Amino acid sequence: MLALQRNQNLNLIMKKTVAVDMDGVLADVENHFLNLYNQNFGTKLTYEDIKGKPEREAFPDPGVVMKFASTPGFFRTVPVMKDAVEGLKKLCDIFDVYVVSSAMEFPQFLEEKYDWLAEHFPFIHWKKIVLCGDKKIVNTDFMIDDHCKNLDFFKGTPILFSAFHNIDVDKYVRVDNWKDVVSLLKIYA
Amino acid sequence: MLALQRNQNLNLIMKKTVAVDMDGVLADVENHFLNLYNQNFGTKLTYEDIKGKPEREAFPDPGVVMKFASTPGFFRTVPVMKDAVEGLKKLCDIFDVYVVSSAMEFPQFLEEKYDWLAEHFPFIHWKKIVLCGDKKIVNTDFMIDDHCKNLDFFKGTPILFSAFHNIDVDKYVRVDNWKDVVSLLKIYA
Repeated sequence: MLALQRNQNLNLIMKKTVAVDMDGVLADVENHFLNLYNQNFGTKLTYEDIKGKPEREAFPDPGVVMKFASTPGFFRTVPVMKDAVEGLKKLCDIFDVYVVSSAMEFPQFLEEKYDWLAEHFPFIHWKKIVLCGDKKIVNTDFMIDDHCKNLDFFKGTPILFSAFHNIDVDKYVRVDNWKDVVSLLKIYA
Repeated sequence: MLALQRNQNLNLIMKKTVAVDMDGVLADVENHFLNLYNQNFGTKLTYEDIKGKPEREAFPDPGVVMKFASTPGFFRTVPVMKDAVEGLKKLCDIFDVYVVSSAMEFPQFLEEKYDWLAEHFPFIHWKKIVLCGDKKIVNTDFMIDDHCKNLDFFKGTPILFSAFHNIDVDKYVRVDNWKDVVSLLKIYA
């Protein structure tokens, strides 16, 4: 009986864990790509033009996504996703939050990514940041991500954050924005 | 019967996972600290002098470990642990290996750590590198680490790699060197 009580108390004390992706969830990379593309090529591409296409094939000029993403300053200047700061703050009140970003493909920009987080999300302690390659060994209760390749191997509850490249995916619980994230996760805290 | 066969085949195909720490396991930081200390202070400190002491209290000059570790080039020039290259290669043959380093305290050196790995362990793909804060959300079958703070929360099989600061710890299976690592883990592959 005492052991049961202790476990129940521990459950009350221990917050559930959430892994939150950066690019496409905290960082509005699709708007960043669109803006950079239109600035560089004098076009007027819109969200409708790239909707439903994989990230690396969405733009008329093949390889441009890789080119932008490997340009110094790209990750440092990406705009913050709408409502992400307030949303993540609320999540931190009720969950043990880790920011988990697949960042090793461009190791020269690891510090840029850290600096971007430190500027826009200063309430995220360095202990809670994970910059990795694939996310297969990440073990949290929830994962919020815009890429199926990360959610497919996840053992907890996967949550798909809407992006132009994933609109046809229907195998995960979907959130369209940060207000949705907070509303959904409040239920599970 | 067919399902059982399929699971057995999957088990044969799927390698078990191992998280391998960098500092104190792949990187010989204790020799690096000793050499730098003796060079800087004209002393002849040996392993015996620092044995059994916590990393940040092992040297007569308090704070010197933090000073060295926050100096540009420290992580880029650390010597490779004896037999680590051959040992890790052998581990990669029989396990799905991730290099997991608690690196976020010094974000200005993330690229140094990546470059060091790329130089000495070029067979580790970028997808298998994790630079993080705490390691609480890392989920692998085994973790090799010299710090109890990382092993204490680990849900798989923890393996303590000997270091001057952990000689009094007796709560984990211990390995003294990379030959021990390979001998021990071969049994569990």
